[in-house]
Amino acid sequence: MQTFHALITITLRKGILDVQGKTVEQSLHSIGFDTIADVHIGKHVELNVRAESESEAYALVQDACAKLIANPIMEDFHVALQPVASETEAV
Amino acid sequence: MQTFHALITITLRKGILDVQGKTVEQSLHSIGFDTIADVHIGKHVELNVRAESESEAYALVQDACAKLIANPIMEDFHVALQPVASETEAV
Repeated sequence: MQTFHALITITLRKGILDVQGKTVEQSLHSIGFDTIADVHIGKHVELNVRAESESEAYALVQDACAKLIANPIMEDFHVALQPVASETEAV
Repeated sequence: MQTFHALITITLRKGILDVQGKTVEQSLHSIGFDTIADVHIGKHVELNVRAESESEAYALVQDACAKLIANPIMEDFHVALQPVASETEAV
Protein backbone atom coordinates (compact mmCIF):
# COMPACT_ATOMS: atom_id res chain seq x y z
CA MET A 1 0.00 0.00 0.00
CA GLN A 2 1.19 3.45 -0.93
CA THR A 3 -0.09 6.77 0.30
CA PHE A 4 -0.99 9.51 -2.18
CA HIS A 5 -1.77 13.13 -1.48
CA ALA A 6 -4.71 14.39 -3.54
CA LEU A 7 -5.36 18.02 -4.43
CA ILE A 8 -8.93 18.52 -5.62
CA THR A 9 -10.20 21.72 -7.21
CA ILE A 10 -13.97 22.10 -7.36
CA THR A 11 -15.48 24.84 -9.51
CA LEU A 12 -19.03 25.73 -10.49
CA ARG A 13 -20.00 24.42 -13.95
CA LYS A 14 -20.31 26.85 -16.82
CA GLY A 15 -23.72 28.48 -16.86
CA ILE A 16 -24.27 28.23 -13.10
CA LEU A 17 -24.47 31.73 -11.60
CA ASP A 18 -21.56 32.32 -9.19
CA VAL A 19 -23.36 34.50 -6.64
CA GLN A 20 -20.48 34.34 -4.13
CA GLY A 21 -17.97 35.37 -6.81
CA LYS A 22 -20.15 38.28 -7.96
CA THR A 23 -20.53 39.49 -4.37
CA VAL A 24 -16.78 39.37 -3.71
CA GLU A 25 -16.15 41.17 -7.02
CA GLN A 26 -18.55 44.00 -6.11
CA SER A 27 -17.02 44.28 -2.63
CA LEU A 28 -13.51 44.45 -4.16
CA HIS A 29 -14.64 47.24 -6.51
CA SER A 30 -16.18 49.14 -3.59
CA ILE A 31 -12.85 49.21 -1.73
CA GLY A 32 -10.87 50.32 -4.77
CA PHE A 33 -9.76 47.11 -6.49
CA ASP A 34 -11.37 48.13 -9.79
CA THR A 35 -8.86 46.32 -12.02
CA ILE A 36 -10.07 42.94 -10.69
CA ALA A 37 -12.81 41.15 -12.66
CA ASP A 38 -14.33 37.71 -13.32
CA VAL A 39 -14.10 36.47 -9.74
CA HIS A 40 -15.07 32.82 -9.36
CA ILE A 41 -15.13 30.99 -6.07
CA GLY A 42 -14.80 27.25 -5.70
CA LYS A 43 -13.48 24.72 -3.22
CA HIS A 44 -10.02 23.33 -2.63
CA VAL A 45 -9.86 19.91 -0.95
CA GLU A 46 -6.73 18.07 0.17
CA LEU A 47 -6.69 14.50 1.43
CA ASN A 48 -4.51 11.43 1.76
CA VAL A 49 -5.53 8.14 0.22
CA ARG A 50 -3.95 4.70 0.54
CA ALA A 51 -4.04 2.42 -2.50
CA GLU A 52 -2.03 -0.24 -4.33
CA SER A 53 -1.28 2.04 -7.28
CA GLU A 54 -1.66 5.62 -8.47
CA SER A 55 -4.44 4.63 -10.88
CA GLU A 56 -6.37 2.91 -8.05
CA ALA A 57 -5.90 6.01 -5.85
CA TYR A 58 -7.09 8.25 -8.69
CA ALA A 59 -10.21 6.14 -9.27
CA LEU A 60 -10.99 6.15 -5.53
CA VAL A 61 -10.72 9.93 -5.26
CA GLN A 62 -12.78 10.47 -8.44
CA ASP A 63 -15.45 8.19 -6.99
CA ALA A 64 -15.40 9.99 -3.62
CA CYS A 65 -15.76 13.35 -5.41
CA ALA A 66 -18.68 12.18 -7.53
CA LYS A 67 -20.46 10.58 -4.55
CA LEU A 68 -19.85 13.04 -1.73
CA ILE A 69 -17.15 15.72 -1.98
CA ALA A 70 -18.52 17.56 -5.03
CA ASN A 71 -21.99 18.02 -6.45
CA PRO A 72 -21.59 16.76 -10.05
CA ILE A 73 -24.85 18.42 -11.13
CA MET A 74 -23.52 21.90 -10.38
CA GLU A 75 -19.78 21.44 -10.03
CA ASP A 76 -16.78 20.25 -12.03
CA PHE A 77 -13.82 18.74 -10.20
CA HIS A 78 -10.19 18.18 -11.05
CA VAL A 79 -7.98 15.71 -9.16
CA ALA A 80 -4.17 15.86 -9.00
CA LEU A 81 -2.21 13.18 -7.13
CA GLN A 82 1.29 13.15 -5.73
CA PRO A 83 2.93 10.19 -4.00
CA VAL A 84 3.77 10.63 -0.31
CA ALA A 85 7.05 9.16 0.96
CA SER A 86 5.59 6.91 3.63
CA GLU A 87 6.87 4.37 6.10
CA THR A 88 4.45 1.75 4.72
CA GLU A 89 6.53 1.50 1.54
CA ALA A 90 9.55 0.31 3.53
CA VAL A 91 7.63 -2.49 5.29
CA MET B 1 -1.93 47.20 -19.33
CA GLN B 2 -1.79 43.43 -19.29
CA THR B 3 -4.36 40.99 -18.00
CA PHE B 4 -3.30 38.21 -15.63
CA HIS B 5 -5.31 35.23 -14.47
CA ALA B 6 -4.85 34.56 -10.75
CA LEU B 7 -5.39 31.21 -9.05
CA ILE B 8 -5.69 31.61 -5.30
CA THR B 9 -5.70 28.71 -2.86
CA ILE B 10 -6.93 29.49 0.63
CA THR B 11 -6.38 26.97 3.42
CA LEU B 12 -6.97 27.02 7.16
CA ARG B 13 -3.83 27.84 9.15
CA LYS B 14 -2.13 25.07 11.10
CA GLY B 15 -3.72 24.60 14.50
CA ILE B 16 -7.19 25.79 13.40
CA LEU B 17 -9.65 22.90 13.69
CA ASP B 18 -11.00 21.95 10.26
CA VAL B 19 -14.56 21.00 11.25
CA GLN B 20 -15.79 20.79 7.66
CA GLY B 21 -12.87 18.52 6.71
CA LYS B 22 -13.48 16.22 9.71
CA THR B 23 -17.18 15.96 8.85
CA VAL B 24 -16.48 15.06 5.21
CA GLU B 25 -13.86 12.50 6.36
CA GLN B 26 -16.35 10.81 8.71
CA SER B 27 -19.02 10.78 5.99
CA LEU B 28 -16.54 9.25 3.53
CA HIS B 29 -15.69 6.52 6.05
CA SER B 30 -19.39 5.83 6.65
CA ILE B 31 -19.96 5.11 2.93
CA GLY B 32 -16.91 2.84 2.64
CA PHE B 33 -14.03 5.14 1.69
CA ASP B 34 -11.95 4.01 4.67
CA THR B 35 -8.56 4.46 2.97
CA ILE B 36 -9.10 8.25 2.80
CA ALA B 37 -7.71 10.34 5.67
CA ASP B 38 -6.57 13.87 6.58
CA VAL B 39 -9.30 15.69 4.68
CA HIS B 40 -8.83 19.46 4.62
CA ILE B 41 -11.22 21.87 2.96
CA GLY B 42 -10.28 25.31 1.74
CA LYS B 43 -11.27 27.76 -0.95
CA HIS B 44 -10.20 28.12 -4.55
CA VAL B 45 -10.59 31.57 -6.10
CA GLU B 46 -9.96 32.54 -9.72
CA LEU B 47 -9.98 36.11 -11.00
CA ASN B 48 -8.57 38.34 -13.70
CA VAL B 49 -6.52 41.40 -12.83
CA ARG B 50 -5.22 44.16 -15.09
CA ALA B 51 -1.84 45.67 -14.23
CA GLU B 52 1.28 47.14 -15.83
CA SER B 53 3.44 44.19 -14.82
CA GLU B 54 3.27 40.74 -13.27
CA SER B 55 4.77 42.03 -10.02
CA GLU B 56 2.15 44.80 -9.79
CA ALA B 57 -0.61 42.25 -10.47
CA TYR B 58 0.83 39.93 -7.80
CA ALA B 59 0.96 42.75 -5.22
CA LEU B 60 -2.64 43.75 -6.04
CA VAL B 61 -3.97 40.21 -5.63
CA GLN B 62 -1.98 39.68 -2.39
CA ASP B 63 -3.47 42.93 -1.06
CA ALA B 64 -7.02 41.94 -2.12
CA CYS B 65 -6.56 38.57 -0.38
CA ALA B 66 -5.30 40.13 2.85
CA LYS B 67 -8.06 42.76 2.89
CA LEU B 68 -11.14 40.87 1.71
CA ILE B 69 -10.82 37.50 -0.04
CA ALA B 70 -9.13 35.58 2.79
CA ASN B 71 -9.18 35.94 6.56
CA PRO B 72 -5.46 36.23 7.43
CA ILE B 73 -6.10 35.48 11.11
CA MET B 74 -7.41 32.00 10.32
CA GLU B 75 -6.30 31.34 6.77
CA ASP B 76 -3.15 31.11 4.65
CA PHE B 77 -3.33 31.96 0.97
CA HIS B 78 -1.19 31.19 -2.04
CA VAL B 79 -1.35 33.19 -5.28
CA ALA B 80 -0.27 31.90 -8.71
CA LEU B 81 -0.44 34.17 -11.77
CA GLN B 82 -0.51 33.40 -15.45
CA PRO B 83 -0.59 36.01 -18.24
CA VAL B 84 -3.72 36.10 -20.39
CA ALA B 85 -3.33 36.74 -24.11
CA SER B 86 -5.52 39.81 -24.31
CA GLU B 87 -6.52 42.32 -26.96
CA THR B 88 -5.32 45.19 -24.73
CA GLU B 89 -1.70 44.18 -25.36
CA ALA B 90 -2.08 44.85 -29.08
CA VAL B 91 -3.49 48.37 -28.56
